[in-house]
Amino acid sequence: MENFILQLPTRIYFGKNQIENLGKAIRPYGNKVLIVTGKGSVKKYGIFDSVVDYLNKDGIKWFEYSGICPNPRLSSVTEGIKIARENNIDFILALGGGSVIDAVKAMAFGIYVEGDLWDYYLEDRRIEKALPIGTVLTLSATGSEMNGGSVITNEDKKQKYPFFSYKLTPKISILDPTYTFTVPPDQTAYGIADIFSHILEQYFSPTCGAWVPDRIAEALMKTVIHWGPIAYKEPKNYIARANIMWASSMALNGIIGAGKITDWATHLMEHELSAYYDIPHGEGLAILQPYWMEFALDEETINSFDTYGRNVWDINGMSDEKTARESIVRTREFLDSLDLPSHLQDVGIDDKYLKEMAENLEKRFNTIGRFKILKRDDIEKIYRMAL
Amino acid sequence: MENFILQLPTRIYFGKNQIENLGKAIRPYGNKVLIVTGKGSVKKYGIFDSVVDYLNKDGIKWFEYSGICPNPRLSSVTEGIKIARENNIDFILALGGGSVIDAVKAMAFGIYVEGDLWDYYLEDRRIEKALPIGTVLTLSATGSEMNGGSVITNEDKKQKYPFFSYKLTPKISILDPTYTFTVPPDQTAYGIADIFSHILEQYFSPTCGAWVPDRIAEALMKTVIHWGPIAYKEPKNYIARANIMWASSMALNGIIGAGKITDWATHLMEHELSAYYDIPHGEGLAILQPYWMEFALDEETINSFDTYGRNVWDINGMSDEKTARESIVRTREFLDSLDLPSHLQDVGIDDKYLKEMAENLEKRFNTIGRFKILKRDDIEKIYRMAL
Repeated sequence: MENFILQLPTRIYFGKNQIENLGKAIRPYGNKVLIVTGKGSVKKYGIFDSVVDYLNKDGIKWFEYSGICPNPRLSSVTEGIKIARENNIDFILALGGGSVIDAVKAMAFGIYVEGDLWDYYLEDRRIEKALPIGTVLTLSATGSEMNGGSVITNEDKKQKYPFFSYKLTPKISILDPTYTFTVPPDQTAYGIADIFSHILEQYFSPTCGAWVPDRIAEALMKTVIHWGPIAYKEPKNYIARANIMWASSMALNGIIGAGKITDWATHLMEHELSAYYDIPHGEGLAILQPYWMEFALDEETINSFDTYGRNVWDINGMSDEKTARESIVRTREFLDSLDLPSHLQDVGIDDKYLKEMAENLEKRFNTIGRFKILKRDDIEKIYRMAL
Repeated sequence: MENFILQLPTRIYFGKNQIENLGKAIRPYGNKVLIVTGKGSVKKYGIFDSVVDYLNKDGIKWFEYSGICPNPRLSSVTEGIKIARENNIDFILALGGGSVIDAVKAMAFGIYVEGDLWDYYLEDRRIEKALPIGTVLTLSATGSEMNGGSVITNEDKKQKYPFFSYKLTPKISILDPTYTFTVPPDQTAYGIADIFSHILEQYFSPTCGAWVPDRIAEALMKTVIHWGPIAYKEPKNYIARANIMWASSMALNGIIGAGKITDWATHLMEHELSAYYDIPHGEGLAILQPYWMEFALDEETINSFDTYGRNVWDINGMSDEKTARESIVRTREFLDSLDLPSHLQDVGIDDKYLKEMAENLEKRFNTIGRFKILKRDDIEKIYRMAL
C-alpha cells in the first residue's frame, strides 16, 4: 500500500428535493452566483427553475451562462470567464453533468489568470486561487462533482487535456437522482461506461495488498453491474438512478485510488479520440476498455485479472488463465448489454489518425499507463485492435 | 436509499513518515498547540519526540497534557480545558487512540462552554464553535480520527454518552501504520472488534437497495476478516496494520451509513457496560455483538443475515435460514480467533446491574436499535444471553 493524502471537502446533499438546501449552502460563499448550464435540458425539465427559485428565496443574485457542450471547449470557458468578471461573481454553480462542471472549474481559476489559460492545462501549472464552485448534478458519469479535476478540449489545437487542483473541488454538490430520470438511454449508457472505466483504471494497479481500496472498487463495480442495466432500461427507477449516481461520485473522489498506483491509459487514449472526433467520452471508453484489457493481460498481470474475474464477476471453478480471459468477455458483454459500440468503425472512425494519436501521446507523456506501460507502438496496436 | 448529507473534511496523511507534514498541516490554524496524550506509550516508543521535533522545526509552540485513560473521563476533559485556556491554545493535537481523540473533541468545544459541559452530552445540545483539532493516530479502532463523534464517561454518574458535531471533525489526521506496530495483541483485538462492530451497526438496516454503502461495508468487513488476525499475530506486518488502520477510519467516517437507517443498539448496550465496569469498549462489543445477532435474527430480518452470510462469509449452497445462522457462528469464530471473550463472566461481570443498565437505556432512549427495535426486556435478555 502506497502513502497517500486524501481530503473530501465537498458537502454532498444526496436525495430527493435536496435542492431546498441550495441557498443556505451557497450563502456562506457570497451573494452573486453565475449559473452555468449545458444545452437546454435543465430548462426543459424544470430543474433550472427550481434552482433560481431557491436562489431568489434566499435573496441570492444570479446570472446565467448557458450552452456548454459535451467535451467542453476552451472558447466556452473564456466566454464564461468574461461574464464572471463583468458581474463580479462570488460563486459559480454548475447545473449539468461533467462537461458543465469541468468548464466551471476552468472558469473558477481562469478568472484569476492573466495570460493564456491553456498553458495551465499544457504544463500542469499550480494555481494560487479559484472562485468557490458548486454543482447540481444532472448526469451520473464523470465524478467531477466530488473532485478537483477538469478536462477541457482546445478545439483549435485538437488537444483534450486534464487538469487537477484540490482548490477546484466543489464546495457543495446536490445529487438528486430524480434529476437523471430524463437522461436518455444512450447518455445513461455512456455515463455507466465512464463510471466503470474510472473504477477499472484505479483497480488494475501494480500496488499489492491495498485491500481497502481494492475491495471498495469491487463493491462499486458490483453496484454498477447490477443497477446500470436497470437504470438503462427503467429511467425512472429511483433506486437504480440513486446507486448509479452515488457510484459515479465514489468512483472518482479519490477513495479507490488512495494508496495505489493507478493506470489511466484507456482514458488518455480516449481523450485523443474525442479530441479528434468529438465522440462522447463514455462511448470511446466502452470501445477501448476491453481491448486495453486484452492487450494488458499477460503472465505478469494475470493475477489481477483473475482476482477481477473472481471477485467482481463471481467466476469460479476455472483456471487462473480462463478466469482472466472470461473476465474480459464478461466486461464486453456488460457493455454490450447497454448497447454500447465495440468498434471504432461503429462510430465512424477509420485508421486515418490512429498513428498520429499514438504519436501525440508519446510526445506528451513518453509512455502511458502504470499497471501496463504502453509505448507508442502499443497504443497504436490497441487503437487498431479496436478498429 | 435514504437522503443524506455527507462531508469528509479531514485531511488524511496516510503512510510511513507522514509525520513530516505535521507542522505544515497545523500552521494554517495557529501557533500554539496543546498536545494531548494517553498513559505514556507514545513517549516510550518515540512518537511523542517525533511530533515535537516537527513542531519545533516549524516554529510552533507546544504545551502538553498527558494521562487520558481508556473510556475517557469528564474530569480529564475539564483539566485539559483549564490548561488550554491558561495557555491561549489555537489548536489541540490528539496523540493516541480514540479515547485521547474523544477527550480532545470535548476540550475543543468545552473551552467555549461556561456552564456544565456534561449537559451537552446529556441533552445533545448544538455547539456554536470549537477549536480546530488534529490527530496522530496510534491505535486502529474507533474511527474518531475522521468524524465528529466524542464518547465521554461521567465517572460520578456512571454515564457514558456520545456527542456528535461536524464542528468537531479533525482538520488533519496522520495515519502512520508503523505507529501501531507496538500495540499489544489484546488491544489490537479490541480495536478489530470495535471496527467490525461499527460496520455491522450500519450494515444491518431496514433500508433497502442502498447498494453503494452495503457493498462498501462488505468490502471493509472482508478486509478486517482477512487482515485482522494477521495484524493480531504479526504486529509488525505493515500491510496488515495499514489495511486495519484505514478500515477503522472508513468504517466510521459516514460513508457506509450514508443513505441508510443504522442500528447502534450493541454500542449503546456496551456503553452502559463500560460505564459500570470500565472494561475496554472493544471487549464489551465482542461479547455482546453475536448475542445481539442471535436475538435480532427472525423471520423479518432473515434476508439481511442471509446476505451477510453469502457476501461476507462466502457461505454458499445452504438454505436462507442455515446461511443466516451460520453467519452468526462465523462471526463468533472470527472473534474467538482473536482470543476475545464471549461471556460477560469471562471479564468478571455478573448479573447484578443487568436490569439497572437496561432500565437506564429505556429511561434515556425509550427503545434502542433501528434495525431491530429493543425494549427494556429485550435489552436485559441480550445481557443475560451474554452472561
